[in-house]
Amino acid sequence: MSRTNRGAGAERLVVIGGDAAGMSAASRARRLRGPDELEIVVFERGHFTSYSACGIPYWVGGDVSDRDELIARTPEEHRSRDIDLRLRSEVVEIDVAGRGVRVREVDRGAESWTAYDHLVIATGARPIRPALPGIDAPGVHGVQTLDDGQELLDTLTRTQGRRAVVVGAGYIGVEMAEALINRGFRVTVVNRGEEPMSTLDPDMGRLVHRAMEGMGITMVNDAEVTGLSTGVDGRVRAVGTASAEYPADVVVLGIGVRPETGLARAAGLPLGRHGGLLTDLSMRVRGHENVWAGGDCVEVLDLVSGRERHIALGTHANKHGQIIGANIGGGYATFPGVVGTAVSKVCDLEIARTGLREKDARRAGLQFETVTIESTSRAGYYPNASPMTVKMLAERSTGRLLGVQIVGREGAGKRVDVAAVALTAGMTVEQMTALDLGYAPPFSPVWDPVLVAARKAASVVHRTP
Amino acid sequence: MSRTNRGAGAERLVVIGGDAAGMSAASRARRLRGPDELEIVVFERGHFTSYSACGIPYWVGGDVSDRDELIARTPEEHRSRDIDLRLRSEVVEIDVAGRGVRVREVDRGAESWTAYDHLVIATGARPIRPALPGIDAPGVHGVQTLDDGQELLDTLTRTQGRRAVVVGAGYIGVEMAEALINRGFRVTVVNRGEEPMSTLDPDMGRLVHRAMEGMGITMVNDAEVTGLSTGVDGRVRAVGTASAEYPADVVVLGIGVRPETGLARAAGLPLGRHGGLLTDLSMRVRGHENVWAGGDCVEVLDLVSGRERHIALGTHANKHGQIIGANIGGGYATFPGVVGTAVSKVCDLEIARTGLREKDARRAGLQFETVTIESTSRAGYYPNASPMTVKMLAERSTGRLLGVQIVGREGAGKRVDVAAVALTAGMTVEQMTALDLGYAPPFSPVWDPVLVAARKAASVVHRTP
Repeated sequence: MSRTNRGAGAERLVVIGGDAAGMSAASRARRLRGPDELEIVVFERGHFTSYSACGIPYWVGGDVSDRDELIARTPEEHRSRDIDLRLRSEVVEIDVAGRGVRVREVDRGAESWTAYDHLVIATGARPIRPALPGIDAPGVHGVQTLDDGQELLDTLTRTQGRRAVVVGAGYIGVEMAEALINRGFRVTVVNRGEEPMSTLDPDMGRLVHRAMEGMGITMVNDAEVTGLSTGVDGRVRAVGTASAEYPADVVVLGIGVRPETGLARAAGLPLGRHGGLLTDLSMRVRGHENVWAGGDCVEVLDLVSGRERHIALGTHANKHGQIIGANIGGGYATFPGVVGTAVSKVCDLEIARTGLREKDARRAGLQFETVTIESTSRAGYYPNASPMTVKMLAERSTGRLLGVQIVGREGAGKRVDVAAVALTAGMTVEQMTALDLGYAPPFSPVWDPVLVAARKAASVVHRTP
Repeated sequence: MSRTNRGAGAERLVVIGGDAAGMSAASRARRLRGPDELEIVVFERGHFTSYSACGIPYWVGGDVSDRDELIARTPEEHRSRDIDLRLRSEVVEIDVAGRGVRVREVDRGAESWTAYDHLVIATGARPIRPALPGIDAPGVHGVQTLDDGQELLDTLTRTQGRRAVVVGAGYIGVEMAEALINRGFRVTVVNRGEEPMSTLDPDMGRLVHRAMEGMGITMVNDAEVTGLSTGVDGRVRAVGTASAEYPADVVVLGIGVRPETGLARAAGLPLGRHGGLLTDLSMRVRGHENVWAGGDCVEVLDLVSGRERHIALGTHANKHGQIIGANIGGGYATFPGVVGTAVSKVCDLEIARTGLREKDARRAGLQFETVTIESTSRAGYYPNASPMTVKMLAERSTGRLLGVQIVGREGAGKRVDVAAVALTAGMTVEQMTALDLGYAPPFSPVWDPVLVAARKAASVVHRTP
């Protein structure tokens, strides 16, 4: 096949994975280098490209009416930009020394090798699916892909019962709890941790816990699932823990994800302690001049702790793709790292965090002070001023901001961005107290909640009344 | 009178002005030093203390039902904390060399001198009231004080007609336009400038203009008021410009404010080119060891242009007060300056800006690039994703962020805070493209609008496709 050898003159870029990181890389490289200079081939094992996996809970919940709204760019749109996109084509081996990938056509089973000059690995993440009895029974669903979402929606439509159990109380877990409530289900969330949202400290997670109970969600903490029982029809019937059984007509798994790096591991590429690919700041795989990686399959540097982390998030994947595409395209761009910002909601509760939790800070060898304050989203006298709680961590003696967690209602979540920028800039909480944030009664109290927290943190660090 | 001389052992702090800056200074100093150490006397010429002048439009418009909701702390509350608060007491002279102030009791006319060890000048700002024919006619209102607000509300209630003219299209002007619409008036805004909101560049002001017209507000630009005509009853009847007359049953002046520094000028204290007091970074009046000033009567350093500006804004006044109080109380705090952040709304339109406009940048001797982008408040597929326009200025060649302006609907305004922190930190637009901002579909597109603008600005600065 002619495609297995490079055309005269043109280099070939091969991209493994056609979602956020992969397609961003391909698109950006294409804008910088035309088809005469660079041939671009993308192998995607699924049916879709460039879709918002983060949007699946809102499609399942009915806020988004149509699956196709989640697709940012269709295969046809990519192809019209001279990107040779092969769907249902799974890369099953990478030959780093020989600069080629072995591809299996998923539906036909045929295999062939394709040579590359530049390789982008954007294989994403796969959901954790513990080897529990009953885990593969009908009625048990993941929500990683559009196909997963469609299967879950089909189950929700077909099933008579209205009892749902969500396993896991992280972002996906709480978002799916909201989605299932919106679909008229009675929802129980079974959570291994002390409180929901383990990306927060437990004291802040407790606020989420209480709010979820207020929404009618049954929250079961400190509970490890031991198995799923099935009915005579073979469908899931209940979720079991060491101490109880929770009846379920449908079960959603939201336990988290791991980097999908089996291919990379087999090819001898460097992986970190979370199983993600390790890259340099230009998103080049360490030690490999012409191999790049980005998105949910890589580890990223946490700028606050100085350690590598694995964070599966579409916004990082898009940035990685842009950077890889720029670099392959002859430009220059780098990804300095993350500060660990995340925002989520369950019904009208907004949950946000950035930087380090208490245990992260301890693990990083930092000593710190913590403060927690209550404030409101708008001036207290303005209509719909809603309460919010802000927790802030600051390094002892230097006063450097280490982390912020926010739980509140409308207007709470995106306030974390101020802290994200301050963390990136290495600001102290004392410096933050002088930040010139937007103030008017419909938008903020005269001291923005983040500044109230910074003032309190500064007073604790400096031990002033 | 015993109060005119200091008690044995205790120092005396005299504060002129009992609103945000003055009372914050007094309260903070009190927390740090008890009554045995520091006597605190506050002279306020009006009836109220510590109220939100920024809230007046919302009280007039009916969003806030009661005047007292705007009062953060009553005179009694201050007095209960050992602050000797004298209402209706106007300081009419400062003797800097002799360390004393001459005070007139507004209602009785009696005068006396009070000595001080520390003086805080927090005299605020006064609205600009041009000497036009008819400007003092009944039915013409300012909205600077609670008393002003009450008088306006009384007029709105009594008047039969429903035609209102607002003079000025800055923050106060557009907020009052909203308030008057909420009270059932037909509103015309007469504006001297090319477009409303002259704190924005005209191209962004034009978006505000169009949106206001969409709300049924008649917007008259490039129009200088030449006089106000009155009816046989002596009440205002119309607002006249060189080319037209606008019938008015009520007129609201929202032309802007100037620092109230007559006292300071007479005392020989240093004023800047905007007429505000000049202080050092600790908010001490320059060259005067024991005189401090803060709030709407001072000039502040603009950290982006390196120039002094006058910005009347409650959030700065509160910060100044805290800093002055900390320093007088034996602590240490400084006010580094502002980046010029402001946020406002007119009905459901949100308007925000920070940093420099094009003309500010030119005036500061900077060369720059500008970009303007359209984005949405949430993922495009998520319900109630609302459009917003973001304009960004970046320094030529360095790529340093210089300013951001945002016009949009719900979720637009407070996004300016990200730019405010980035400006404070001196970030480049290229650095901003990597900012780890909170992303989830209900909160943001996968590229936050501020990042979309930063990407475009970076590409223009670096001349990459």
